[in-house]
Amino acid sequence: MKKVYLDNNATTMVDPKVLEAMKPFFVEKYGNPNSLHSFGAETREYMKIAFDRLYQGINASDEDDIIITSCATESNNTILKSIYFNSVLNNDKNEIIISAVEHPSIKNTANFLEKLGCNIKILPVNKDGIINVNTLEQYLDPDKTALVSIMWANNETGLINPIKELAEFTKSKGVLFHTDAVQAIGKTIVDVSETPVDFLSFSAHKFHGPKGVGGLYVRSGVQFIPLMHGGEQMGGLRAGTVNVAYVVGMGLAMELATERLKYEEKEVRRKRDMLEEAILSIPDTFVVGKRELRTPNTILAGFRGVEGEALIWELNQYGIATSTGSACASESLEANPVFVAMGIDKELSHTSVRFSLSVFTTDEEIEYTIDKLKKSVERLRNISSSYTKTSYTKGGENA
Amino acid sequence: MKKVYLDNNATTMVDPKVLEAMKPFFVEKYGNPNSLHSFGAETREYMKIAFDRLYQGINASDEDDIIITSCATESNNTILKSIYFNSVLNNDKNEIIISAVEHPSIKNTANFLEKLGCNIKILPVNKDGIINVNTLEQYLDPDKTALVSIMWANNETGLINPIKELAEFTKSKGVLFHTDAVQAIGKTIVDVSETPVDFLSFSAHKFHGPKGVGGLYVRSGVQFIPLMHGGEQMGGLRAGTVNVAYVVGMGLAMELATERLKYEEKEVRRKRDMLEEAILSIPDTFVVGKRELRTPNTILAGFRGVEGEALIWELNQYGIATSTGSACASESLEANPVFVAMGIDKELSHTSVRFSLSVFTTDEEIEYTIDKLKKSVERLRNISSSYTKTSYTKGGENA
Repeated sequence: MKKVYLDNNATTMVDPKVLEAMKPFFVEKYGNPNSLHSFGAETREYMKIAFDRLYQGINASDEDDIIITSCATESNNTILKSIYFNSVLNNDKNEIIISAVEHPSIKNTANFLEKLGCNIKILPVNKDGIINVNTLEQYLDPDKTALVSIMWANNETGLINPIKELAEFTKSKGVLFHTDAVQAIGKTIVDVSETPVDFLSFSAHKFHGPKGVGGLYVRSGVQFIPLMHGGEQMGGLRAGTVNVAYVVGMGLAMELATERLKYEEKEVRRKRDMLEEAILSIPDTFVVGKRELRTPNTILAGFRGVEGEALIWELNQYGIATSTGSACASESLEANPVFVAMGIDKELSHTSVRFSLSVFTTDEEIEYTIDKLKKSVERLRNISSSYTKTSYTKGGENA
Repeated sequence: MKKVYLDNNATTMVDPKVLEAMKPFFVEKYGNPNSLHSFGAETREYMKIAFDRLYQGINASDEDDIIITSCATESNNTILKSIYFNSVLNNDKNEIIISAVEHPSIKNTANFLEKLGCNIKILPVNKDGIINVNTLEQYLDPDKTALVSIMWANNETGLINPIKELAEFTKSKGVLFHTDAVQAIGKTIVDVSETPVDFLSFSAHKFHGPKGVGGLYVRSGVQFIPLMHGGEQMGGLRAGTVNVAYVVGMGLAMELATERLKYEEKEVRRKRDMLEEAILSIPDTFVVGKRELRTPNTILAGFRGVEGEALIWELNQYGIATSTGSACASESLEANPVFVAMGIDKELSHTSVRFSLSVFTTDEEIEYTIDKLKKSVERLRNISSSYTKTSYTKGGENA
């Protein structure tokens, strides 16, 4: 059966070039980079190349730190919990501001810290689904706020927040700023020399690197308390034997993602738009968020009268992989907070399906998906008790 | 140049079979196991096989949990910090007992918690370099002690602690028991059905799996606070997208490690003993710890009049990889705590080199090492100002 993968916001295929680059670091060059002997030393030169690629990918300065972590969840936990250990416990500022549409690794960590005495404020999105600087101005209190954490791009809608303005405002008030850039790397320009974030999280498996490795950018001079204590890896900022193979892979994946940004912006966007136009040509459908405010690869679409999960199953029968939203919340039955924030009613929010493309998605795959999607929506509406064509379309009975 | 790797306590070569088993999970089967569609589903069956192998490897019960982590450092941090969040912060018991010879991921985490109000007690080793139950009895106070954490086998000496007795005693007092079994898996029998530990940490890269994945065993009914909050992976006990390839690899590595235990016990021990006899045949050398109390693969040897680090460099010139101790503490200049605990003077402790074999070590490699080691020690002693042959050996001048 044909297989079409349109769930790239959940995870991506490892680029075959990345796999090739990683292969020597399992059976051949397996030394521990912390070891003094030649087996250790030979891995260090490859680590250096990988770090250079990571620094270049986000345009970090040599004085800044990029800490290797096991995933963005770890990076996010590190920064939020550091505020607890560094600030809250010392009876310093005890407030963290996050947005209403953060990933569970921010939201649930904040919930945990709230129980420990941290004050968590949740920024609502505006009617476009993004965070306004005006809103942040109303919430931020320089005497109380220790950290503002706002994602760069949303995993479910692809909506991009104005991180430069949000970070600049936060910095002007002397408050630390963190961004979860997991869905931004490889989809839009992420340049920390122009965007004054203090901390930035990323994860290799969202840009065709392996699952199980990520990074935490830390601006020069900014302190934090490590989440993992132990050995002296990462200058004492993240203990644990370094996963050389995956660091090498993530470095190359970052370089490729940067090189492919123009392709993403032009060709992935064109394919996405082709799919989006086809979705909107089906009656009684809608797409969340203005197209120009989104990453080029993402569509969160609603199909009135169709359960999102039923449509995913239907598409899966044709070999097409999509999702109702975050894979990290796939077991959760709560209404999508993005929909709630944007004022889309709960019934409609249950009709939504996310399509997320990658640089490997082909025109032919999009055409196949359009064909099967139209058939699937029609079939599900025909057996749906909640969908009556006449109630929405012109033309009256049996039109 | 010939290459001989005798630093397997720092990290091991990935078994070629393990690499083969992991390969399909990068470019072919790259789905997120939390996704509902077929790309997600096809990975879940392999995850199940891997988990079955992990459970069988340590003989865990189906009701117990094995949590996938990024390394044993993470597993160790999780359990110690859980005591802080769960017990210390709630003004419950605030004492953690660790041994004097723990890995930095236990020791430095304990140091961190001490600053937060946790009372840390450090158990000394006896003259054999191991922890006695009698000593633990003197330290443990059921009204104050929240956790006892003692490593199964030591990374530097290979000395094996009587974990069964230590865990049984701790459990009889109603106190939680954790063991860092990183150096025990694949070297000695680790069976949680016979050894009543509550928590056990392990790391794949110490038994021919990849670097960057580990596990945390948690006995059925025992609670802990996760170190990473976020998605619902691992039943909410460890958030973060699962590294499918490495879980598959770790599962197979665990199965192979268990199958090879007899080989380890017989053949690795024989090779180790061959090297050890040769070391002891060099005048003015010693080996730390009784042979029968150690894992079959480890020798920590001292060469009077020779700086350990100089000998490592000398052996490195011949392509032989050894270490002065833990790679996780390679930049530390403190005296080896095992030596201090065993009453070996500081000058001698600086003459030590660790040789750690694996199931892949050959007789020929050991013979080559013996030859080069003898030459290296002789050369270094000849240029050493601190070594005078006559002061230690019989026969007087130029004997």
